[in-house]
Amino acid sequence: MSLIYVVGIGPGAYEKMTIEAAEALRSCDCIVGYTVYIDLVKDHFPGKEFLTTPMRKEVDRCVMAFEEAKKGKTVAMICSGDAGVYGMSGLMYEVGVNYPEVELKILPGVTAALGGGAVLGAPLIHDFCLISLSDLLTPWEKIEKRLLLASEADLSIVLYNPSSLKRHDYLQKACDLMMQHKSPDTVCGLVENIGRDGEAYKVMTLKKLRDTEVDMFTTVFIGNSQTKELSGKMVTPRGYKNV
Amino acid sequence: MSLIYVVGIGPGAYEKMTIEAAEALRSCDCIVGYTVYIDLVKDHFPGKEFLTTPMRKEVDRCVMAFEEAKKGKTVAMICSGDAGVYGMSGLMYEVGVNYPEVELKILPGVTAALGGGAVLGAPLIHDFCLISLSDLLTPWEKIEKRLLLASEADLSIVLYNPSSLKRHDYLQKACDLMMQHKSPDTVCGLVENIGRDGEAYKVMTLKKLRDTEVDMFTTVFIGNSQTKELSGKMVTPRGYKNV
Repeated sequence: MSLIYVVGIGPGAYEKMTIEAAEALRSCDCIVGYTVYIDLVKDHFPGKEFLTTPMRKEVDRCVMAFEEAKKGKTVAMICSGDAGVYGMSGLMYEVGVNYPEVELKILPGVTAALGGGAVLGAPLIHDFCLISLSDLLTPWEKIEKRLLLASEADLSIVLYNPSSLKRHDYLQKACDLMMQHKSPDTVCGLVENIGRDGEAYKVMTLKKLRDTEVDMFTTVFIGNSQTKELSGKMVTPRGYKNV
Repeated sequence: MSLIYVVGIGPGAYEKMTIEAAEALRSCDCIVGYTVYIDLVKDHFPGKEFLTTPMRKEVDRCVMAFEEAKKGKTVAMICSGDAGVYGMSGLMYEVGVNYPEVELKILPGVTAALGGGAVLGAPLIHDFCLISLSDLLTPWEKIEKRLLLASEADLSIVLYNPSSLKRHDYLQKACDLMMQHKSPDTVCGLVENIGRDGEAYKVMTLKKLRDTEVDMFTTVFIGNSQTKELSGKMVTPRGYKNV
């Protein structure tokens, strides 16, 4: 039986990968991934065969991994963060229906919510949700509805894909929706280049966030009603009673 | 300046820890944590000083860590999963206000949602939320509201602390609430003992989950309207348009 590891490599820095992820990349024959992710790991795993496809060619990338595995190679498909959070593991199961002779093993990793949360302090101690602002595969109305209901539920919210060239005003729209239920003074934070060169963070109010420009390498955090700024960090308490 | 690492050790198995977490535990003088977590890591870090406090003595545990750091030791405070998800990093910042001379460095880890998701397949590919059913520090009405609104938002939902001796019917209550907005046929899953001996998973409908008993070492996953069972795994597609 052939084997494909689907590996979340974490935010980017080698040290933020799990031990089992590094072991899988060392033991495999061939590493498949989007060019940017291959560049992040390449130097740490010399002598491997590296195969890439451009962005948005995700199905091709999955087929490529299965075809290499069919030749008898052990393959690792890499994703940034966690392979199961806006990552490739779902598509690998879908494409994998055509390759019953290949086994998939998913190795989890540190997704941007956790990696960025650690940089900001402790924004996600209590209930929270992840919402992607990309409307490439999701109708914008669905995204709007989720932003409204998650805000009404007083969840902390992490926004993935908060911006792109075509969607420069989406974060502003999202903040306006969240402010229908969250106070404009809600403590928020953003982290750029988590675990990579140029890592930086800012803590600010939701009102201020609304008028802040972010790029596609930024992850955005919106607190719940209890979240506070403490020594410059973003901190959410464990609950709603005093500790 | 003294230093405390607040370290998420992942689900339990040494290999599921990040490389930087293992390095921090190797380089520190003293490891502080709840007894169960100390037992998980002890054999991998011989020669360290280990300090524990019982469950629910979290503030004492934080003070202990800061007092050891004040003596000039490098301290690691360990949590299972991620230190920032229902973990100790928030409380460490709160207690840390009294210890301005001690620096905190948070090292993220694989929380149960990600570790368990990898075992189940790919349940969290799209927007999701984490909700704890523990009403120890949160009013049950708040938990109910979140379950209802998250279900109405068609988010995938991961339930932490789904059960305890005193709360044996909470999962049943939660399922009834979620079924106000989610179909009884929604694909769900549960994972026991993630990354530890006895790891096991099941995929089932929400209706079936309602009548299933789980223990406190179980993490529960409820899909969104698109989640399907595929080759025995729980798989959520990337979006709402065809790939």
